[in-house]
Amino acid sequence: MNTISSLFNPSAVAVIGASHTPGKIGHSIVKNIIASGYRGGIYPVNPAGGEVCGLRCFKDMEAISDPVDVACTVVPARMVHDAVLACALKGVKYNLIITSGFSETGNIEEEKKLVRTARDHGMRIVGPNIFGLYSAEAYMDATFGTGNIKPGPVAIITQSGALGLAMIGKTGVESIGLSAIVSVGNKCDIDESDLLEYLVQQQRTKVILMYIEGIKQGERFIRSLKKSTRVKPVVVIKAGRSARGAAAAASHTGSLAGADEIVDAILKQCGALRADSIAEAFSWCTYLSNAPEPATEQTVIITNGGGVGVMATDACERYDIPLYNDSEALRDIFSPVTPSFGSTKNPIDITGGAAAPEYSQALDAALDHDRIGAAMALYCETAVFPAADLEKMLEDIHRRYTDLRRPVLFAAVGGEDIEHAIIRLRKKNVPVFNDVYQAVACMGKLFEHYRQKRSRCDTFEDCDIDTAAIDAITREARESGRSFLSARESRDIMRIVGIKMPASCVARSLDEALARCEEVGFPLVMKVVSPDIIHKSDAGGVVLDLHNRDEVIDAWQAIMQRCLAYLSSARIDGIELSAMIEPGVETIVGARRDPVLGPIAMFGQGGIYVEVMKDVSFRALPLNRLEILAMMKQTRSYPLLLGVRGEAKKRHRRSA
Amino acid sequence: MNTISSLFNPSAVAVIGASHTPGKIGHSIVKNIIASGYRGGIYPVNPAGGEVCGLRCFKDMEAISDPVDVACTVVPARMVHDAVLACALKGVKYNLIITSGFSETGNIEEEKKLVRTARDHGMRIVGPNIFGLYSAEAYMDATFGTGNIKPGPVAIITQSGALGLAMIGKTGVESIGLSAIVSVGNKCDIDESDLLEYLVQQQRTKVILMYIEGIKQGERFIRSLKKSTRVKPVVVIKAGRSARGAAAAASHTGSLAGADEIVDAILKQCGALRADSIAEAFSWCTYLSNAPEPATEQTVIITNGGGVGVMATDACERYDIPLYNDSEALRDIFSPVTPSFGSTKNPIDITGGAAAPEYSQALDAALDHDRIGAAMALYCETAVFPAADLEKMLEDIHRRYTDLRRPVLFAAVGGEDIEHAIIRLRKKNVPVFNDVYQAVACMGKLFEHYRQKRSRCDTFEDCDIDTAAIDAITREARESGRSFLSARESRDIMRIVGIKMPASCVARSLDEALARCEEVGFPLVMKVVSPDIIHKSDAGGVVLDLHNRDEVIDAWQAIMQRCLAYLSSARIDGIELSAMIEPGVETIVGARRDPVLGPIAMFGQGGIYVEVMKDVSFRALPLNRLEILAMMKQTRSYPLLLGVRGEAKKRHRRSA
Repeated sequence: MNTISSLFNPSAVAVIGASHTPGKIGHSIVKNIIASGYRGGIYPVNPAGGEVCGLRCFKDMEAISDPVDVACTVVPARMVHDAVLACALKGVKYNLIITSGFSETGNIEEEKKLVRTARDHGMRIVGPNIFGLYSAEAYMDATFGTGNIKPGPVAIITQSGALGLAMIGKTGVESIGLSAIVSVGNKCDIDESDLLEYLVQQQRTKVILMYIEGIKQGERFIRSLKKSTRVKPVVVIKAGRSARGAAAAASHTGSLAGADEIVDAILKQCGALRADSIAEAFSWCTYLSNAPEPATEQTVIITNGGGVGVMATDACERYDIPLYNDSEALRDIFSPVTPSFGSTKNPIDITGGAAAPEYSQALDAALDHDRIGAAMALYCETAVFPAADLEKMLEDIHRRYTDLRRPVLFAAVGGEDIEHAIIRLRKKNVPVFNDVYQAVACMGKLFEHYRQKRSRCDTFEDCDIDTAAIDAITREARESGRSFLSARESRDIMRIVGIKMPASCVARSLDEALARCEEVGFPLVMKVVSPDIIHKSDAGGVVLDLHNRDEVIDAWQAIMQRCLAYLSSARIDGIELSAMIEPGVETIVGARRDPVLGPIAMFGQGGIYVEVMKDVSFRALPLNRLEILAMMKQTRSYPLLLGVRGEAKKRHRRSA
Repeated sequence: MNTISSLFNPSAVAVIGASHTPGKIGHSIVKNIIASGYRGGIYPVNPAGGEVCGLRCFKDMEAISDPVDVACTVVPARMVHDAVLACALKGVKYNLIITSGFSETGNIEEEKKLVRTARDHGMRIVGPNIFGLYSAEAYMDATFGTGNIKPGPVAIITQSGALGLAMIGKTGVESIGLSAIVSVGNKCDIDESDLLEYLVQQQRTKVILMYIEGIKQGERFIRSLKKSTRVKPVVVIKAGRSARGAAAAASHTGSLAGADEIVDAILKQCGALRADSIAEAFSWCTYLSNAPEPATEQTVIITNGGGVGVMATDACERYDIPLYNDSEALRDIFSPVTPSFGSTKNPIDITGGAAAPEYSQALDAALDHDRIGAAMALYCETAVFPAADLEKMLEDIHRRYTDLRRPVLFAAVGGEDIEHAIIRLRKKNVPVFNDVYQAVACMGKLFEHYRQKRSRCDTFEDCDIDTAAIDAITREARESGRSFLSARESRDIMRIVGIKMPASCVARSLDEALARCEEVGFPLVMKVVSPDIIHKSDAGGVVLDLHNRDEVIDAWQAIMQRCLAYLSSARIDGIELSAMIEPGVETIVGARRDPVLGPIAMFGQGGIYVEVMKDVSFRALPLNRLEILAMMKQTRSYPLLLGVRGEAKKRHRRSA
């Protein structure tokens, strides 16, 4: 089997279009592969021959005698197909096509040709239009970036090349170690799902960051993402939030929601952590790659200043972090380390007099307690507790607690000394931030990841619906050239699915009405049926709440009399009798097949409020009972459903 | 007049409790005042005499022969009152009471005594429980911070002392210059409104940052804030978002909304820019203190990489930044500087090949165009455009455009070289950020400030309501010991205010019903009036939509018959006839006097949805027509009001 592992750990790499000129892409890649310590064979290929970075240059692929797993292709676009063919014939497994100028500039046919040629020979393509690939597993930086990538636990999959290279730079600034970074570019063959599935089972990768602009093969992606987040945190930047309306919004669902609303819901459903900015994504990745799973989410905040404590408390609410709340236990735990003018309420204020020993004692006291699962220590710069002491203490505490399934993090607000201490600590993977909200967000995302991992259920109940009967109805409609269902067909489907409809019939005469009213049942409603009367109520053509046969007779006469008074020429086909049902809560259930994301379900508040209140939630199908419940609970109007009878009654009474 | 300007620019300062021991607060303050270059008289006061930091120490206030404007009091709490009295007798204008241990620890009476003593002698108090004050105007750092405050355009008013000192440190890290920083502590006398009103008219202050936890004297604060934001941007961190329920929630309004929802609405109403975190607030302040007012908000994004362009576009939507959209004009402007594989659509992609000349040309082309008001240049690190060139170019462009009412800002994503360039540029006040969202937010807040400044109207229309008559009704209710109004009283008030109610009457007999039905008007509704029948509809006691006298007769008989069938013992007092009004949109209008914020109005969607949908908006009173309209527009259900007739009809029809 041609597994993707040889992409990340190839035995030998060829660079087709290797250049003798420093600064050229074909030179940078060879240079980076050598500099990063790659231990497999490196084969620069250039018809001019000679040497590149001290390595012998091969005239073509045939000239290389050993097998080659991966080729980096950097020749001009018009020469790429020949290179692809040569690699395919050589038995190369993966071709990283760096070169741009294919589908992204409209050159779609040429790109398709590359894929066909590769497929014919069992070769896979990454790209085209990419910056290459870095794999810590192989000590191989096959990108044309600035080099010096620090190995570590974060894998990045990016659709944007320029941004990807800039991200490499930024990982250096923020001391983030990478297990891999790969750009997918036009993803003509290998896409983010392929890469995700490999990286999620790769030992050294602890967290995966994806930068995505557009999704191809959405259903596959959703499946991969769901599986991946069960194993590791996946942070997703899905840009293009505001790029709406691309997908035709034919169905009701589509017209309701900007596509991003759906993408957002599905990312959450899949257990991904969605970040907006690189800054946010990087800080989450840093923390999540290194923090243990909490045994319980009960958290304490320890601080030397009220202000940061208050802000952290606000942030905990925003990021769904439960603060440990047992005031007696808190007093027992923290009064030994809290001066009388401090506070043992959570956030714990150990006061401006606190230095390293006080912080350490407070954190030890907190984390020795079974019911406290996590701690955040916040620090405002003070004269009594200088940056050097802080640095030592944070490192020490971090070392002590990461092995103990006790997530801890730190935020420090202060001047230059503090900033420098933070930079040094980050290099040692100590989770310390210079902003309280940023810090709390990281803890929140850690909890979110493990919470959804624990609570999510991806098994599906059997469902006893006669889908063949439904298919027959829709097929018939389709065969008769319709894209909609008739009222009768809709009713039939409702019956098959088991959705109740009020009993009703249309009576052509008063006699027929009297003959059938018991079968409809009292109380009932009567409504005129006339092709000439659209606004039935305006014409006096509706009478509600009829309790017996006498009232049916009165109503029949009143409706006929009023409607003819309203429009003397009206053709009246009869009067419809319907069971009068209790007012309820109008809801809407919708579904569509999204061209990108596949089948999507919608649930929400119905009636006139659908359009105005947009109180709807979305999920990708299939869904199980648990997910459907979550979807319903997510709407603002959910409480109305809980009180259906009560609320309906209230409304009824009020209108009475 | 004892103006507050002598607090920020005193002729002489005394430090009561000046200490000989380095590290002590009483020492640090003297040291900082000297080191900051203060040119007025500095008088350390300590009964022990001697010298502090080379200055002669006075035994007490009396021993100082010259007048003293400001005293910093750092003696222990029990000695503070004597110091206050001594200062008052000496004619000190402002006493900064650094010492803590007053109302914040329950010592409320002592704090009140300080205020009384000060007031008796015309002295004002800042604090107690503060870190002091820095004023660039006087070159005076009278805080016990670490010193080295950089003078500049940002004024900070903070309620938290520890956080304030940490913020001073952070301004150093971020190269933010301060015009003043002052902590208000327990604000027993001088509060944030006093300080705000001074700083807003002080020339050197360009933007004011307030950190607030609790508001005293809300109405005064709202007035000050409204006035201030007409002059300068005011960024507010109001912490304690999640601290709910303190204010008794007796009224309907209170029970609906967490207090923070109201605070948030009022801050917006006052034109303040609310930030969550220090990081956010600092970056807004940096940009707003230095950016010109835009002539138009039409903005272009110029980028060398698609990814950051997409993210910036998303961020523009979030922060309400309109992107210039005339594709023909954009092509004309940018095609000379955009390669064929780039894009002249906004965001403009001048491609990864762009270096300083291309960026400069693109920005010049953009900002020479009348209809483009602002530009954001985004940069992903590339080999062709190194950090050194970037630095020079950004500085140059910044210098060229700030004088021309053209806000420009930059974001650069990359490695160490870029980060260092950013730090150096920030020191020169060039607005450059290392995160796209952060950058765009700053531009958004700039627009928000000027937009509300232009559009806000603080004048009030005359209102022709007989308030005396309303007062008489409520007084009568109060005098009879009620805290609620009877149905009749409510109707009377509705009539006085001019709110229409449907006509109605209660008929004791069918004859009376027939005699009065024309006066009520058709169509009408009839409802049983019985103390024994609570659920009128369940008893069949309601008939809707009656069109003539005959139908009234039928309905009378039907109601009587059904109700007695429902409960034979029911006492029936009569039947109410009410005009049947078109179904409309239920709305709620509420008001309360908030203990902190004063009179507050609420508007929103009514009916059962009030509690569930919480679709309400809040404002502080008084309100003018424009503000009321804005308040209505802010609710999600506002479109329902625009289509009242249409929507009502639709609903009617649907239920029919």
